[in-house]
Amino acid sequence: MVPGTAEGDGVRIHAGRLHSRLQDLSRIGSTPEGGVTRLALSIEDRQARKQVVAWALARGFECRRDLAGNLFVVRAGHDREALPVMTGSHLDTQRNGGNLDGVYGVVAGLEVLESLEDEGASTSSDLVLAIWNNEEGVRFAPVTMGSSLWAGKLRLADLATQIGSDGVSLETAIAEDEEEVSGLGAAAFASPFRAYLELHIEQGPVLEAANLPIGIVTGIQGVRQFLFKVSGEAAHAGTTPMVTRKDAFLGALELHSRLRALAIVDDPEVRFTVGRMSMNPGAPNTIPSEVAFTVDFRCPDATKLRERGAAMLNAADRLWAGCSMTVSNLIHSEPVSFADFIMESVRGAARAEGLPFLDLPSGATHDALNAASIGPTGMIFVPSRGGVSHNPKEWTDPEQLAWGCQVLANALRDLDYERGSDGNRSPTA
Amino acid sequence: MVPGTAEGDGVRIHAGRLHSRLQDLSRIGSTPEGGVTRLALSIEDRQARKQVVAWALARGFECRRDLAGNLFVVRAGHDREALPVMTGSHLDTQRNGGNLDGVYGVVAGLEVLESLEDEGASTSSDLVLAIWNNEEGVRFAPVTMGSSLWAGKLRLADLATQIGSDGVSLETAIAEDEEEVSGLGAAAFASPFRAYLELHIEQGPVLEAANLPIGIVTGIQGVRQFLFKVSGEAAHAGTTPMVTRKDAFLGALELHSRLRALAIVDDPEVRFTVGRMSMNPGAPNTIPSEVAFTVDFRCPDATKLRERGAAMLNAADRLWAGCSMTVSNLIHSEPVSFADFIMESVRGAARAEGLPFLDLPSGATHDALNAASIGPTGMIFVPSRGGVSHNPKEWTDPEQLAWGCQVLANALRDLDYERGSDGNRSPTA
Repeated sequence: MVPGTAEGDGVRIHAGRLHSRLQDLSRIGSTPEGGVTRLALSIEDRQARKQVVAWALARGFECRRDLAGNLFVVRAGHDREALPVMTGSHLDTQRNGGNLDGVYGVVAGLEVLESLEDEGASTSSDLVLAIWNNEEGVRFAPVTMGSSLWAGKLRLADLATQIGSDGVSLETAIAEDEEEVSGLGAAAFASPFRAYLELHIEQGPVLEAANLPIGIVTGIQGVRQFLFKVSGEAAHAGTTPMVTRKDAFLGALELHSRLRALAIVDDPEVRFTVGRMSMNPGAPNTIPSEVAFTVDFRCPDATKLRERGAAMLNAADRLWAGCSMTVSNLIHSEPVSFADFIMESVRGAARAEGLPFLDLPSGATHDALNAASIGPTGMIFVPSRGGVSHNPKEWTDPEQLAWGCQVLANALRDLDYERGSDGNRSPTA
Repeated sequence: MVPGTAEGDGVRIHAGRLHSRLQDLSRIGSTPEGGVTRLALSIEDRQARKQVVAWALARGFECRRDLAGNLFVVRAGHDREALPVMTGSHLDTQRNGGNLDGVYGVVAGLEVLESLEDEGASTSSDLVLAIWNNEEGVRFAPVTMGSSLWAGKLRLADLATQIGSDGVSLETAIAEDEEEVSGLGAAAFASPFRAYLELHIEQGPVLEAANLPIGIVTGIQGVRQFLFKVSGEAAHAGTTPMVTRKDAFLGALELHSRLRALAIVDDPEVRFTVGRMSMNPGAPNTIPSEVAFTVDFRCPDATKLRERGAAMLNAADRLWAGCSMTVSNLIHSEPVSFADFIMESVRGAARAEGLPFLDLPSGATHDALNAASIGPTGMIFVPSRGGVSHNPKEWTDPEQLAWGCQVLANALRDLDYERGSDGNRSPTA
């Protein structure tokens, strides 16, 4: 049985339409390697946004846009006073990224709205698909920019003059986009919701290894990102005796080794990555005077993240191979736990399809992190082959994509009805 | 007593003129930090070359130029059939380099020619000052390009279409220079000489630490430069468990540690430097798929250089933290020993001034390395404060600069007379 073929009492999604729309969007910004480059608010991203809006308007859905460039597709419920049920994701990609990261959640969300429309099914609440602007943070920093602005974690005034990687300012890019998708109604920041549920590929190897089609995401692990700068002394590689050197590279290695120990990288909950290192002056025959490197440290346990992160910051107190060191904090994001009633709703949605599932935390950051600061939030994962993402080789079996979409449809309908488990947060409960 | 003030029977150099010319040249390409940027055949370098030629022509010296852009200032001897005695260095610099590296040897060589002229002193051989093109290898690769072409180690046809760091080809740059210093006679490649003696700052800490003004350079240590590329797999820093990663950075660290062991960095003769490292894709939240780094390995002992270098090349045979590795050979330059009779001549020249001296190998590569492949060669070092070079802080006391120049003058005159110690290499001996 695949979604769209079953005889059930619920709304069935249309797998063919889901795949065809994914293919349509994969052609916008496609790369020779089979991936896609669709940086936030670029010509390609604006084209993809316009396409999704066109599909939505063709079905009679209302489309809105906020000042941060987030788009909202609304299928009206019969009680327009009720808090909406939301889903969402993003259309922007990494450079030469994959064809599923972000776009899958958008297309699947639209598919749920359209399937409801096809069958004339009504909901009590509005069902809203959010298309968050600039999740990847490649052209403009930071990551999850649109949803952070929407959730009030950042202020647009602080970011607007930022110059993107192509020399265009954020405010100009947002204005260009506004022209392109003109005529939409305005949407407010931080509007409350009954539930936010985001569907995404796992971008990790856990579901594939467990051979399970659905992941119940328990939360998003915390992230600390640091930039360490080690300062020594430039000197001639041929003339300077080894013992008199202040080699910033050796200082960086000694420090790196200590940081791994402080992070306790053997702890299976911990992720510790050095993804960028730069050396100055960077000549093969010159001892480096400065080496800068990033550390990305993640853990779902708030206490471990806080205590070990603090220990890393304190490493600046001493010399490393005779070199001084400074550290700056790039990102500090606390772990988030998702709402129990949403996880339970997703479990029920999977059970209804006979799909086995697994609870797991999200290793990556998503827009759901920001939604969780406003209201009850959850996520669904589908497997990623080889755990590969941010890469043209990103892949999920089409059938698994369809199952994920069907589970999203079931869960969103389930979340539409009043539930007792969330009395404090949902005014309609 | 300082040079230029003594009553001696030899020619005395003029310290004031030496310093004033160094100051004149330090203004061509000067940087805010007090250094100088005069990349090979750039507007600044061509201006400096033109200035030195103008000084030489004003004294009636003959100036010649070869196809590689090397310049030769000739003060004629009374026996024009005799092999010339040569000195030389370079006017080009590193980016924001110092005010002595190279230019000191050129200005001191000119000062010797002018002092002889001032006093009407005659020599039997022509005395030739070579101004080697592109010693630093910053704008065009490789280092010591001009003297390598002159010595026949490289062919101009293989380099001419090379595009420099500013987008201009080497052949265009050489043509631009030819226009600028037009009207000079042609010079042949690889013309034989009686002796080549180059004066240079040490660019290392040895003479300063020993508190000695003159270094008798015994040779130039050998250099091997490698580029190692470690290939793993890019993956998401937040989602990928530590144990399943193929992290090219960890592979590079494991490899680096092994390479240091193979080089035996505790051996006081050894220099081992990682001066450049690049990481791909270079995002803080992505495990690097490829890390490339250079190793600069030097040793005056040919056997150690060969055997340990070969062991490093063989390290490609295995995996490093699960990552594959390739290595390429950037530079392989055997150690060179300088001619005994030239070293002895320099020792005598220093003794005549009452200057104590020390024998030491050169850690850095110089144009003298290429001259040594053609004929008997030597070098003189003066101290470098703090051993600092390739840096605006490069500094030698003016008095020490003057002493170095006086020793060069004494030695060049000494080398002008027939000597028995070099019967095989010098036809006039």
